[in-house]
Amino acid sequence: MQIDGDRFLADLHALRAIGAAGVGKGVVRPAYTESDVAARRWLAGRFEDAGLEVAVDGMGNLFGLAGGQSLLMGSHSDSQPEGGWLDGALGVIAALEVARASREAGGPAISVVSFQDEEGRFGVTTGSAVWSGHLAQPEADGLTDHAGVTLADARAALSEMVTGPVDPARFTGFIEMHIEQGPALDSAGEQIGVVSDIVGIRDMKITFGGQQNHAGTTPMHLRKDAFQAVSAFNTLLAERFRNVVTPATVWTIGHLSLHPNASSIVPGRAVFSMQWRDGDPDRLARMEAIIRDTAQEVAESRGMDMSFGPLLGLEPVRMDGRLRGALEEAAETVAPGKWRTMPSGALHDATNVSRLMPVAMLFVPSIDGISHAFEEDTAEEDLVAGVEVLARAVAVLG
Amino acid sequence: MQIDGDRFLADLHALRAIGAAGVGKGVVRPAYTESDVAARRWLAGRFEDAGLEVAVDGMGNLFGLAGGQSLLMGSHSDSQPEGGWLDGALGVIAALEVARASREAGGPAISVVSFQDEEGRFGVTTGSAVWSGHLAQPEADGLTDHAGVTLADARAALSEMVTGPVDPARFTGFIEMHIEQGPALDSAGEQIGVVSDIVGIRDMKITFGGQQNHAGTTPMHLRKDAFQAVSAFNTLLAERFRNVVTPATVWTIGHLSLHPNASSIVPGRAVFSMQWRDGDPDRLARMEAIIRDTAQEVAESRGMDMSFGPLLGLEPVRMDGRLRGALEEAAETVAPGKWRTMPSGALHDATNVSRLMPVAMLFVPSIDGISHAFEEDTAEEDLVAGVEVLARAVAVLG
Repeated sequence: MQIDGDRFLADLHALRAIGAAGVGKGVVRPAYTESDVAARRWLAGRFEDAGLEVAVDGMGNLFGLAGGQSLLMGSHSDSQPEGGWLDGALGVIAALEVARASREAGGPAISVVSFQDEEGRFGVTTGSAVWSGHLAQPEADGLTDHAGVTLADARAALSEMVTGPVDPARFTGFIEMHIEQGPALDSAGEQIGVVSDIVGIRDMKITFGGQQNHAGTTPMHLRKDAFQAVSAFNTLLAERFRNVVTPATVWTIGHLSLHPNASSIVPGRAVFSMQWRDGDPDRLARMEAIIRDTAQEVAESRGMDMSFGPLLGLEPVRMDGRLRGALEEAAETVAPGKWRTMPSGALHDATNVSRLMPVAMLFVPSIDGISHAFEEDTAEEDLVAGVEVLARAVAVLG
Repeated sequence: MQIDGDRFLADLHALRAIGAAGVGKGVVRPAYTESDVAARRWLAGRFEDAGLEVAVDGMGNLFGLAGGQSLLMGSHSDSQPEGGWLDGALGVIAALEVARASREAGGPAISVVSFQDEEGRFGVTTGSAVWSGHLAQPEADGLTDHAGVTLADARAALSEMVTGPVDPARFTGFIEMHIEQGPALDSAGEQIGVVSDIVGIRDMKITFGGQQNHAGTTPMHLRKDAFQAVSAFNTLLAERFRNVVTPATVWTIGHLSLHPNASSIVPGRAVFSMQWRDGDPDRLARMEAIIRDTAQEVAESRGMDMSFGPLLGLEPVRMDGRLRGALEEAAETVAPGKWRTMPSGALHDATNVSRLMPVAMLFVPSIDGISHAFEEDTAEEDLVAGVEVLARAVAVLG
């Protein structure tokens, strides 16, 4: 089977133009926004052109279906609030090109998917979580974004495209190609990473409730300052994690909103996101215990209220041996000596899909390891090399 | 001269209804918003009814002028994003009542003012700062609120009301009545506080610029996390202030905005407000040096960028002896043994006005010391007692 690199790159750049940030190659295409919906309409057209049957489920997961049993390939086309052009989009367009090339060569049947809200406007890989049965639709509908919009309201923007549920039983497996989003391949000058497993993730909102008051007349010792509570919690956490984490463990406070957020007022409330990731489920649990105890302690010592949001997350996942083996063989053929086996520190839809069928993942380098930013990029020859590895593997898997 | 307590309270509650939060007695009337403009139009009508000539300068400072030379009284009618019903409004309506009562009794000429943006949507007591010549209009026009709106654009909302500049030379002095906004009077069961001096304030925006990146694939030791920089800065500051501050000194990080503020992204930028207050100008300067050094240090140690916004602020101010003496005599008559002399930990328009004429201030209790919050309140008998003290003092001052 012969892939068409130019056709693949042309489609990838066409998708980038939908929701283009106007800054470098960056895109602004969060789930269910106007640009996300426009991108899904455009993708649906390209799926039809490729002879695939378009199907959209209630969450807005977009499928291009081959007839009968098929291998599913793809990723997601939604982006972070300030996203790169390849995060997700690469895996969708690469799958489309392989599906086209395989069809032209009379190869195996390939279906394509773009999952919805992988970037977690409403949680964590929300679209594939619902499709895989990991998250019930009614529960998902209650999730809100940082602006307080419910998923139920947001997904109405796609209702016109919905055709109904898509039965996972029609797929024999799932392969997702993605940028590494880390520095490993780029710093080693390698082209391909075959994923061994995906780390687990936990994500929880925490709220500290203190006493909003005047910043000039409230003595320091009488304050119940919600920002000071977050800062103290953050400092204590780093100390307490020290004996528990490995160099591969990460944790992040990426979202914080103070209330009322004015310079002359002692903040009365702070809501923030606590996210942590590791390959070992036991370590994730030990970290959760430290987080809960520390937040409790900080609140009690300051006479403040504290509450936890729902704990969202996914378990670490091992890739399927057969699919992974085919990718490794193909990688050695396409990029001899310039590929490696590696874990994925980032979360992917493949984690959810692994509950339903065998899954595997393929990485290409991220320049300087930068992702989730407008600067995100990858050399086009590496992008094409990745698609070639996919095509060879698929041909072998038959 | 005889004040009318019912008329005073009726006007105070009528003003509260404009921009009412619907939560307790709270109001939402930030400078130049629809509700602030509506309140100023209503006040202008009440000034006319009281036989005062309405004048509005370019900033939107609203005056009710008595003929010839007069004593100026008042405060501000704009509120915090979530404000109490008395913060500012009390001083304006109290002044209106005293002006009316004095006129009816053939007493001294009293003019009334409601200054604009005392709560600092665009800075610190912006309206009286411009009127007093402390801040030039062109410089003020360049100030932006937390949403990025410029003062120049915001004040256009009041342009229809503007009559032109108001000459400070027509006023012989300024008396501002205000709630204490602290716990001192309420916890002591006292009714009146005569202010001795107003503490100085400094306010500065600080920005840390790091590297926005993926929260799963960026190892902790390679991160340039802007939130971690703010947290480290905040912790170091508390330690370094210890040997410099007194129990009366306060400092606050009340506003913080992370960018892009998403749970799966290492924050690349943090902009926050640093505010500190003290009665001693030298201490304010020593604190500024510590703030600047610490921010620099934190940024350098993390290989991050850092920048300071303009330093806004006001010097500590002593109240005028003659005006203050009249208030103390009146306080002893109206509330014998239930009043005190005290400093003001909060900033007030009187600070700016003191550059132009003698100033004095009168406090009434804040229940539980709560202010800058919907719960802010004061017993109505204390409110009326305050107006009676004002009226007696004014009569004596002649």
